[in-house]
Amino acid sequence: MRLKVAILGATGMVGQKFVQLLADHPWFEITTLMASERRVGKRYGDEVEWIVSSDVPENVRDIEMAPMDPKHCDADIVFSALPSDVAKKVEPEFAKEGFVVASNASAFRMEEDVPLVIPEVNPDHLKLIDVQKRKRGWDGFIVTNPNCTTIMLVITLKPLMDLGLRRVTVATMQALSGAGYPGVPSLAIMDNVIPFIKGEEEKVETEPLKLLGKFDGEKIVPANLKISASCHRVPVIDGHLEAVWVEFDRNVELEEVRKAFESLKPLDLPTSPKKVIIVRNEPDRPQPRLDRDAGNGMSVVVGRLKKVEGSVIRYIVLGHNTVRGAAGASVLNAELMVKEGYIK
Amino acid sequence: MRLKVAILGATGMVGQKFVQLLADHPWFEITTLMASERRVGKRYGDEVEWIVSSDVPENVRDIEMAPMDPKHCDADIVFSALPSDVAKKVEPEFAKEGFVVASNASAFRMEEDVPLVIPEVNPDHLKLIDVQKRKRGWDGFIVTNPNCTTIMLVITLKPLMDLGLRRVTVATMQALSGAGYPGVPSLAIMDNVIPFIKGEEEKVETEPLKLLGKFDGEKIVPANLKISASCHRVPVIDGHLEAVWVEFDRNVELEEVRKAFESLKPLDLPTSPKKVIIVRNEPDRPQPRLDRDAGNGMSVVVGRLKKVEGSVIRYIVLGHNTVRGAAGASVLNAELMVKEGYIK
Amino acid sequence: MRLKVAILGATGMVGQKFVQLLADHPWFEITTLMASERRVGKRYGDEVEWIVSSDVPENVRDIEMAPMDPKHCDADIVFSALPSDVAKKVEPEFAKEGFVVASNASAFRMEEDVPLVIPEVNPDHLKLIDVQKRKRGWDGFIVTNPNCTTIMLVITLKPLMDLGLRRVTVATMQALSGAGYPGVPSLAIMDNVIPFIKGEEEKVETEPLKLLGKFDGEKIVPANLKISASCHRVPVIDGHLEAVWVEFDRNVELEEVRKAFESLKPLDLPTSPKKVIIVRNEPDRPQPRLDRDAGNGMSVVVGRLKKVEGSVIRYIVLGHNTVRGAAGASVLNAELMVKEGYIK
Amino acid sequence: MRLKVAILGATGMVGQKFVQLLADHPWFEITTLMASERRVGKRYGDEVEWIVSSDVPENVRDIEMAPMDPKHCDADIVFSALPSDVAKKVEPEFAKEGFVVASNASAFRMEEDVPLVIPEVNPDHLKLIDVQKRKRGWDGFIVTNPNCTTIMLVITLKPLMDLGLRRVTVATMQALSGAGYPGVPSLAIMDNVIPFIKGEEEKVETEPLKLLGKFDGEKIVPANLKISASCHRVPVIDGHLEAVWVEFDRNVELEEVRKAFESLKPLDLPTSPKKVIIVRNEPDRPQPRLDRDAGNGMSVVVGRLKKVEGSVIRYIVLGHNTVRGAAGASVLNAELMVKEGYIK
Repeated sequence: MRLKVAILGATGMVGQKFVQLLADHPWFEITTLMASERRVGKRYGDEVEWIVSSDVPENVRDIEMAPMDPKHCDADIVFSALPSDVAKKVEPEFAKEGFVVASNASAFRMEEDVPLVIPEVNPDHLKLIDVQKRKRGWDGFIVTNPNCTTIMLVITLKPLMDLGLRRVTVATMQALSGAGYPGVPSLAIMDNVIPFIKGEEEKVETEPLKLLGKFDGEKIVPANLKISASCHRVPVIDGHLEAVWVEFDRNVELEEVRKAFESLKPLDLPTSPKKVIIVRNEPDRPQPRLDRDAGNGMSVVVGRLKKVEGSVIRYIVLGHNTVRGAAGASVLNAELMVKEGYIK
Repeated sequence: MRLKVAILGATGMVGQKFVQLLADHPWFEITTLMASERRVGKRYGDEVEWIVSSDVPENVRDIEMAPMDPKHCDADIVFSALPSDVAKKVEPEFAKEGFVVASNASAFRMEEDVPLVIPEVNPDHLKLIDVQKRKRGWDGFIVTNPNCTTIMLVITLKPLMDLGLRRVTVATMQALSGAGYPGVPSLAIMDNVIPFIKGEEEKVETEPLKLLGKFDGEKIVPANLKISASCHRVPVIDGHLEAVWVEFDRNVELEEVRKAFESLKPLDLPTSPKKVIIVRNEPDRPQPRLDRDAGNGMSVVVGRLKKVEGSVIRYIVLGHNTVRGAAGASVLNAELMVKEGYIK
Repeated sequence: MRLKVAILGATGMVGQKFVQLLADHPWFEITTLMASERRVGKRYGDEVEWIVSSDVPENVRDIEMAPMDPKHCDADIVFSALPSDVAKKVEPEFAKEGFVVASNASAFRMEEDVPLVIPEVNPDHLKLIDVQKRKRGWDGFIVTNPNCTTIMLVITLKPLMDLGLRRVTVATMQALSGAGYPGVPSLAIMDNVIPFIKGEEEKVETEPLKLLGKFDGEKIVPANLKISASCHRVPVIDGHLEAVWVEFDRNVELEEVRKAFESLKPLDLPTSPKKVIIVRNEPDRPQPRLDRDAGNGMSVVVGRLKKVEGSVIRYIVLGHNTVRGAAGASVLNAELMVKEGYIK
Repeated sequence: MRLKVAILGATGMVGQKFVQLLADHPWFEITTLMASERRVGKRYGDEVEWIVSSDVPENVRDIEMAPMDPKHCDADIVFSALPSDVAKKVEPEFAKEGFVVASNASAFRMEEDVPLVIPEVNPDHLKLIDVQKRKRGWDGFIVTNPNCTTIMLVITLKPLMDLGLRRVTVATMQALSGAGYPGVPSLAIMDNVIPFIKGEEEKVETEPLKLLGKFDGEKIVPANLKISASCHRVPVIDGHLEAVWVEFDRNVELEEVRKAFESLKPLDLPTSPKKVIIVRNEPDRPQPRLDRDAGNGMSVVVGRLKKVEGSVIRYIVLGHNTVRGAAGASVLNAELMVKEGYIK
């Protein structure tokens, strides 16, 4: 018997990815698709401007869109693909009414009592759930996943923490799908790079500190790390590429870094890839078009490891921004919560 | 009366840019176009696969291609757009015979007695010409300009030297034209980024040390600077974009950096732009398609200045890689040599 | 002394092109820039999301945006870059108040008493102006130019009329700028072709009949011609390419067609190109990126002429859709009206 | 037990597609990969510049490349992805030695005794095999599939033949992969369309006449049909789109055409799609990126049906050019030959 799940913001870019990942999920079954007023009552297959594959999956096509109201939601888990400002208002209404909200929105990520989780990185941060429910007096709760760019980065930083990581410099080359749909106008990005993504650098510079921090029984004590990010939009459909310089508090050898990357263990969950980090040795990989679908879009791919100087290493990391970086991240979080008993 | 100029490798991407910049130059007149064996004797307009504008300039269309042999070269200055391995053999033959070779090739850039020059950065390095002629016993000489990516970067580093610059980290997003023609296959780069350009990072990490070094009467003493580069090819036609982190030996304010950038003076030469560095204040500039033609492709455009921490500043720099970064760089060098009396 | 001109819809894609073409025009001077409510009172340079070049021309940057109201318009000519539904309401208000409206909007193109003009094709249709003023009792009047795709096509059809043209089949590959800004989402068009442009085929199939028709003293008698169009959006910034099959009522030789194309005479007007139709003989031209700027974007370029069978000829035509196909078309119409005495 | 198959030209674009389609085929097993001299003896996984997915399938990675010589070929069927000039020489050598050659090359397509086959269109043309073997005295034989652009077109023309089809006008928008690898330079096609593909229009205008012709016991009597094609390269990775006008010898209704399309039956073969022609009703489909993978790249997708005039219908057709249009076409031919008993 599968758990019933709902999607908030089901017609947008990330909403479509949720539908795609959940349409045929072994544990979950889509029962409710929620969207803004003007779409309520209409057939999902008619309303959505479907762009992630050739056709809307057959078993959701006929679902009638529901309003974003807990009363109309027949589900155990609510996945949220809402824009941050809407999420701020809507998600607590669901949590209050007892729903488990697995959110990709940024609205609550940095709230002290809200878990910001990547299952392979900080599963124990789910313990914040009890703190949250106690403090807020909610029957349900909100669990969030990080920003798409943060996720790829932090998955590679996690195994480096034990080597004495202290400073990170990262330049990103981010895909168009990260901006949603319609998102970036073609006239703005054809034959061009836009060296700016609103709010992105701030997220990449702060979210990792929480993710890599320690739960002290009541809150997360942030990691002691300095991060500087420069974020750029490039004419690529899917797949965020990041050039990363990591500086340690001691001399570090390439082999230590490589081993650390390969030591990150996959979880025994349906959406988990067989390898969390794939290290490639070719001189010109990873590349978005060739590597974004590795592990069904849930692996991150690392390459071009190079020792810059004694304590500084450079590498490239790539991940699928709407799968591992968004919808897949939330789904993996929900699977972890089921496994850990947070969802009955 | 204009000086006669020749172009080595006139049919390639950079060769075409030389033709374009020189077809209507106030000081220079194209008299000789040299290419590989199979093209010799053929009309330039028939042979070249012209892709830099709608048509080959009228006054060079009928020039009959000459072999790459000093005997067939009727010119005062020889511009070289040769690939490095060919340049290695051919350029000295011309210098030996008394020609001034203004080369965009990498073959001789790092030779101890060969000037590597950006006119606004290190014009005094032309003094190496005398050393070169003396050491090699040549009647002519070779003067080189740096790699395209190096040029944009070093133009911005020069004014920062006095602020105590000591470390540079740079991630580049480089245009397709930098790979020449046919260059990058469309199937390799559409909907993609390639995080590797052969030999590029090495050039960007070493050439600036020579450019920012001091001439001690006999050779260049390299600047004391550490540079780490990560180079990426993006689906952009022209214009290299670079995200740069500069670290100083003291706390530096943004205003100092901005003033330093704007203090770099243009030269009084035909190809010199009115502003060497244009600092833009919009949150999302510079962009390749919008800014690469600033100053007819000879300005570099800087934006997104940000203080990362006390001694670290981040900014974005952009320049036209085949103009300021290649053909235009050689032409400006030649103009400087004329003005300084190295060419009669 | 230059005539004062105003632009309706000055911040959109075509509006920006009007500004660009008029900022330095020998006969016209921009005095008024009109836009929607929320922009009124704001500086043009601050409000416009300028994407057609690096910077807004200096002499219009400081113009304060005016409401779309004849009372606030200090101009002899009003250029309209309005969307059709807005144009429908706004343009007559200006014509009624005595303004000459040179419109790129589709709203009035097919009205019986409104001239639809390409200066080199049907300048005598301006005689409809008197009919219009009489019928409507307006002090001013509206003159329109055709749809961007229609213009390139009809410029090539005009000289073929005398050869006995009776059927036209055209498949278009249209640029992104034709959809305005933000227009086509990058996620919709990257690595893609969209075989549909709303309303476009209807325009291309009907407007030419009026353009190639005869003025009978009171109205236009449409040309006797059958046109079928299939319109497609391709990932190209500027420049509409069209594959055209023309069928005549008799056997026609290629040389007749070529001569007919080259016989179309340019006008003696500031925006007129030296050659109206440029016929290229290379096997692979015209191409949007290489040929769209021919004649400063006002020439149309034809190539690949081929005899299909006795009475059928195939060729390719290309033109710059926002210059010859939009803003430049309206400006040329205005210049013609000045020359013909319709504007004092 | 699976049949052993070999691939000629295994490292090119189409060669890679053969490898991909055959690596996991229920009836066939790759045993031999043949390539040009310089690659012989090397590991396929090391030699191929693999660009069709993230990694070379595991079970072919270690195959050592063989020379293109029947003596080194351990296989029942030889798939050929050779360029035409090489195919001309090499394919007969294999046929002579008793191999079944299923070729995607154009070299023998129009030879009188060589079957040019699309299984759903003209399976009975395989009867030419006996004629070929008899005439040439070969133990084996060559069977070919059409040009990629021809295939999509003819699959839609076949069911229209009974409605009295007599004239076809087609404008194509063809993908980059159709030109092989490295193929089209990125600098040639970014922000561009190239209205020319060498030899393509001739193929599209002649191959269908053979495909739609009748086998008279000895040869194919070509269909009585006039075709005119205009072929264009667009910046799309995979998927050829074609705008087609079909003219009948009588008035034809849209519904007849739609029914005809849907009447084309799929074959019971492993690579056969469930639907040969998918008719879509949305106003803006088919699109290359969304529809090229329909039926695993083996369906063709039709849309935008429109009645132009009484006897003329217009529609759009799309197919995956390297699957249905190349490697998949040869594989389907081989499957048909196995089923029909031509291969033991």
